[in-house]
Amino acid sequence: MNHLSPEQLLQSLQWRYAVKQFDATKKISEAVWNTLEETLVLTPSSFGLQPWKFLVVTDVAIRQQLMAHSWNQPQVVDCSHHVVFAIQKNLGEAQIDRFLDSTAAIRGVARASLDGYRGMMVGNLVQGPRHSIINEWATFQSYIALGNFMTAAAVIGVDTCPMEGIDASKYDEILGLSGSEYQTVVACAAGYRSSADKYASLAKVRYPKSELIRHI
Amino acid sequence: MNHLSPEQLLQSLQWRYAVKQFDATKKISEAVWNTLEETLVLTPSSFGLQPWKFLVVTDVAIRQQLMAHSWNQPQVVDCSHHVVFAIQKNLGEAQIDRFLDSTAAIRGVARASLDGYRGMMVGNLVQGPRHSIINEWATFQSYIALGNFMTAAAVIGVDTCPMEGIDASKYDEILGLSGSEYQTVVACAAGYRSSADKYASLAKVRYPKSELIRHI
Repeated sequence: MNHLSPEQLLQSLQWRYAVKQFDATKKISEAVWNTLEETLVLTPSSFGLQPWKFLVVTDVAIRQQLMAHSWNQPQVVDCSHHVVFAIQKNLGEAQIDRFLDSTAAIRGVARASLDGYRGMMVGNLVQGPRHSIINEWATFQSYIALGNFMTAAAVIGVDTCPMEGIDASKYDEILGLSGSEYQTVVACAAGYRSSADKYASLAKVRYPKSELIRHI
Repeated sequence: MNHLSPEQLLQSLQWRYAVKQFDATKKISEAVWNTLEETLVLTPSSFGLQPWKFLVVTDVAIRQQLMAHSWNQPQVVDCSHHVVFAIQKNLGEAQIDRFLDSTAAIRGVARASLDGYRGMMVGNLVQGPRHSIINEWATFQSYIALGNFMTAAAVIGVDTCPMEGIDASKYDEILGLSGSEYQTVVACAAGYRSSADKYASLAKVRYPKSELIRHI
């Protein structure tokens, strides 16, 4: 296994920033983009439930519509691939059973051998404390995907710009999610920075490690 | 810049899994751990506000107490470093001003030049739509940190196990956060897998890419 050295990881994370100006002429190659899609698919989630869908928008006309509901940030149209993170709403027993069917098939185990796991998930997510915040819980998972995506992109040299400043319900309308079991929660543009983007060279603003981290 | 190749990235993400059994005799070296702390500090957050604190627990007695409130998962005590992700509660103008003071100092710009940015943040987070869900919003940011942390660890060969199954208010009591401006939201154990952990070789359960990703 070829890992990055700690120094190389830090270089990549220092190199990353929220791109303000993409080079609209540079597109992510198919091979690299396929890897980033695999990255999304491989994102860890609570219990492994994957309560999400990822919409990859390359259509120019659709992106122009989305930009109008993204605080007019030009990254939406100038990036290479605009990724919309949608949650699966109201996760319940049906989705848990679908996941367990998938687990049994992929791992070649009897479905009944997963009954204990089913009980844990139902107890926690359907009958338990997370039921009343199930869509927030799904959103938490989507943000793991967002963090994973930005870091994975950085370590292979792809730029990103995360976007919370979007009108999620307008996104849903434009992307055909309204009335479906999915809804938009956040987005992230991916591509390559313009050499003219002055934000690339600004010093990162972070609180000192001593304020952010406590050792116990 | 030495980036990972797309193939190397995928190998790392395939190698990653939620560790069930850590090798309690293997500890993360100081140099590697420092890098992972830098990774946490460098996590992107909405507006750059960093509404969080990371508690790194190595004390054995404290970890035993935490384990009792972590569904008794032994990873809490067997890992090398147990990281608790806490949000800063009720983020408001004071925290925004602290961030802008930090920005002005680090970038050497006049504080007044950031007034427009301040207005955007206050409009969105204090007077706007996110005010009523400000702690959930901070939790979303912490999950970016969690995703970043797990992926960064994987690409440098460190194992992790994310944990939502914790009693956050008990964590707060044990860690001295109760009554403070911070509260626990999630945790992640980090260390090295035991060679006896059978979960390492189980096939990953993921829905097919065609179900999780839609191209537009």
